[in-house]
Amino acid sequence: MPQPLTATQALARLDRGDLSAEALSQACLDRASSREPQVKAWSHLDPDLVRAQARAVDAEGRTGPLSGVPIGIKDVILTRDMPTQHNSPLYLGSHPQIDAACVSLLRTAGAVIFGKTDTVEFAATGRKALTRNPHDLLRTPGGSSSGSAAAVADGHVPLALGTQTGGSIIRPASYCGVYGFKPTWGLVSREGVKPFAPSLDTVGWFARSAEDIALLFDVFDPHPPPRLAPTFDMAGARIGLCRSPAWTQAEASVQAMIAGVTERLAAAGAFVEDLNLPPLFDDLLQTHLVVMRMEARAAFLAEYRRHGDDLHPELRGYVRACDGLTADDLRAAYDAAAAARVVFDDLAETYDAILTPSAVGVAPLGLEQTGSFAFNGLWTLLHVPALNVPAGSDANGLPLGITLTGPRFSDRRILAAAAVLGPRLIGARVE
Amino acid sequence: MPQPLTATQALARLDRGDLSAEALSQACLDRASSREPQVKAWSHLDPDLVRAQARAVDAEGRTGPLSGVPIGIKDVILTRDMPTQHNSPLYLGSHPQIDAACVSLLRTAGAVIFGKTDTVEFAATGRKALTRNPHDLLRTPGGSSSGSAAAVADGHVPLALGTQTGGSIIRPASYCGVYGFKPTWGLVSREGVKPFAPSLDTVGWFARSAEDIALLFDVFDPHPPPRLAPTFDMAGARIGLCRSPAWTQAEASVQAMIAGVTERLAAAGAFVEDLNLPPLFDDLLQTHLVVMRMEARAAFLAEYRRHGDDLHPELRGYVRACDGLTADDLRAAYDAAAAARVVFDDLAETYDAILTPSAVGVAPLGLEQTGSFAFNGLWTLLHVPALNVPAGSDANGLPLGITLTGPRFSDRRILAAAAVLGPRLIGARVE
Repeated sequence: MPQPLTATQALARLDRGDLSAEALSQACLDRASSREPQVKAWSHLDPDLVRAQARAVDAEGRTGPLSGVPIGIKDVILTRDMPTQHNSPLYLGSHPQIDAACVSLLRTAGAVIFGKTDTVEFAATGRKALTRNPHDLLRTPGGSSSGSAAAVADGHVPLALGTQTGGSIIRPASYCGVYGFKPTWGLVSREGVKPFAPSLDTVGWFARSAEDIALLFDVFDPHPPPRLAPTFDMAGARIGLCRSPAWTQAEASVQAMIAGVTERLAAAGAFVEDLNLPPLFDDLLQTHLVVMRMEARAAFLAEYRRHGDDLHPELRGYVRACDGLTADDLRAAYDAAAAARVVFDDLAETYDAILTPSAVGVAPLGLEQTGSFAFNGLWTLLHVPALNVPAGSDANGLPLGITLTGPRFSDRRILAAAAVLGPRLIGARVE
Repeated sequence: MPQPLTATQALARLDRGDLSAEALSQACLDRASSREPQVKAWSHLDPDLVRAQARAVDAEGRTGPLSGVPIGIKDVILTRDMPTQHNSPLYLGSHPQIDAACVSLLRTAGAVIFGKTDTVEFAATGRKALTRNPHDLLRTPGGSSSGSAAAVADGHVPLALGTQTGGSIIRPASYCGVYGFKPTWGLVSREGVKPFAPSLDTVGWFARSAEDIALLFDVFDPHPPPRLAPTFDMAGARIGLCRSPAWTQAEASVQAMIAGVTERLAAAGAFVEDLNLPPLFDDLLQTHLVVMRMEARAAFLAEYRRHGDDLHPELRGYVRACDGLTADDLRAAYDAAAAARVVFDDLAETYDAILTPSAVGVAPLGLEQTGSFAFNGLWTLLHVPALNVPAGSDANGLPLGITLTGPRFSDRRILAAAAVLGPRLIGARVE
């Protein structure tokens, strides 16, 4: 296939007038339709609706920062003109005529809402997406934002929205070899997004370049941009390498990737140091699970009361408190997480960027599971921004990813670092 | 008027078969229609829809714990069969065909969704509800859950849902002389409820008795009930009297009420002690405002981008960061709140119940403001349960209220205490 355009590249051509929004959307539709039988990224895609939106942009003129750019929407996010089915039989054909706040922001910015991407049931657990990893159709694309990651990786759309409560953006981005960003918790409104664990749930997005990730950040950031945009200089940069409590689970390919990245950055003039987390972080993966499972009880109580045994057994297990967790456990988890956030921000503040693996290895074989999120839950719990940067591939050509993180609200610093580090990590823009 | 039935009383008569759901709903409709021209509690009320729901309960039999009980829904909460307008011109006639999770739970429990209650714009700021205080039509009912509190106080419905981000349940409950409960943060799903500041936003409810508050708690509590239900014994009870950092604002009527309550409880055999908060609590009212204002930026960004200057100037002010607050301020506020939660829970754990004023005085004159929430923001920020218990009236017969609070997740203990303390505070069930 010809290299598909990134959003930034497409916008430049749209601005110059040598590409119409309709032609761009049609190219995306063509690519999606040729690949969908294999990749199965979409739970809903209506070509006529896509073309109508694109033609409206061409007719009305480009007024927003994303005018004419197609974007996929994870199917746990409400869209007024498309069904929202959560990959749950309970919501088959469900179609509330309302946009989530994040979709409304995209529409105001001029984006073409392209379709709904397949997801793990309720972005939580239960049924897996039908989506396959475009790099190897026998492998999972990761989850729960499976369709969004695969659609971007496979060139159907330049951008897609996802959500993360455990590792649902970073992991599929890593497995599919694309950029995936989970901003600081709370930065993007969750209005109209199916809750799973509200003190963890975060709306984020996928793209094929660091610039595209930053482009969407400007659409969603609710705070005034800084007078001086942050910059990142490789020469003399202080980079923390955080192996995190999950390091013992890292496979050889990930260990080799981290060693290689460290070497390349050092060769380019950066100071790469080990960032060792203090002992209070050792239990935070368990803390994350406690918050996720306990908050899920409230999130799925209405479905459980209404549908009983028709709710997937795994979700039913959450609501029925099969884990035996108590409110005291949740309170302790909240307090441990809050204390760790303060400590991590202090530690992280001294680095220009922090690197950590995005996954324990490449995408595993099979679609019945979506891989481990051992390397992701900590950052979700800490509320910090996390960006997957594609970092080459293993011996079989399967993507590996590295996470760039930092203190809460350092989103723009991370994006500035990624613009420089991204190309250095793999030596070229990811395809 | 004849004393309107509480939900518990109505359920007993429905169970005995000497009252039908239709007759109960019709009595509520009659009361509402006779009083609505003065009280203006409702933004939407369709008598046919109410009767249809009630008749369905009578036809299908009573299967849920609330079968046949009418309940009002604050108009920032989505209802599939009624518009949701947020008291905002931007949402005039807006009617997404979807239930909020809390409304879905009520329907499954058999409740009759009676209508939508007027609210301060977006439960935040801007336009005030048209609702008047049933005790004095020249006075505010408080806000933002204005219509819900007034509808319950005035006998239109036995129950109503509200939301609280600052003092939007406790304050109107106090001004209107009804019970109003804000459970522990996160206990009730906010899915389908307009966000204002998600780390504060809480769904709660109004009723005319402590039993009714507990009845709804059982519908919403996502955690398994304790094997031993908590009890409260007046004799020997250790009660903390927390004047809170807002005490200097308490008017004479509130100071006298607190003194009277203390005396009555001591006479009944309780030990009432001052609970003095340590200095770190002194700034928490400001901390609360920082969280509320900063999180509002993300909550209203989509409306601002779409509607610009048509968004109410006060809400526009939030999004445009007119307060000059920065992300560092928000981070500091998050951390101060989290630290205070741990300290307060430890302090509160040693008391059987904690009392504090619900408002600085009685409902003020005029509808153009909703009164101070100086006594409420702290408890919202601490994520603890808070219950307004009607506590008599001032010299002019206007209601005063006291807040019962305790550690996070002590909701059931508070409800048990209220069942005993409620009647002791005013000497009789509130009308």
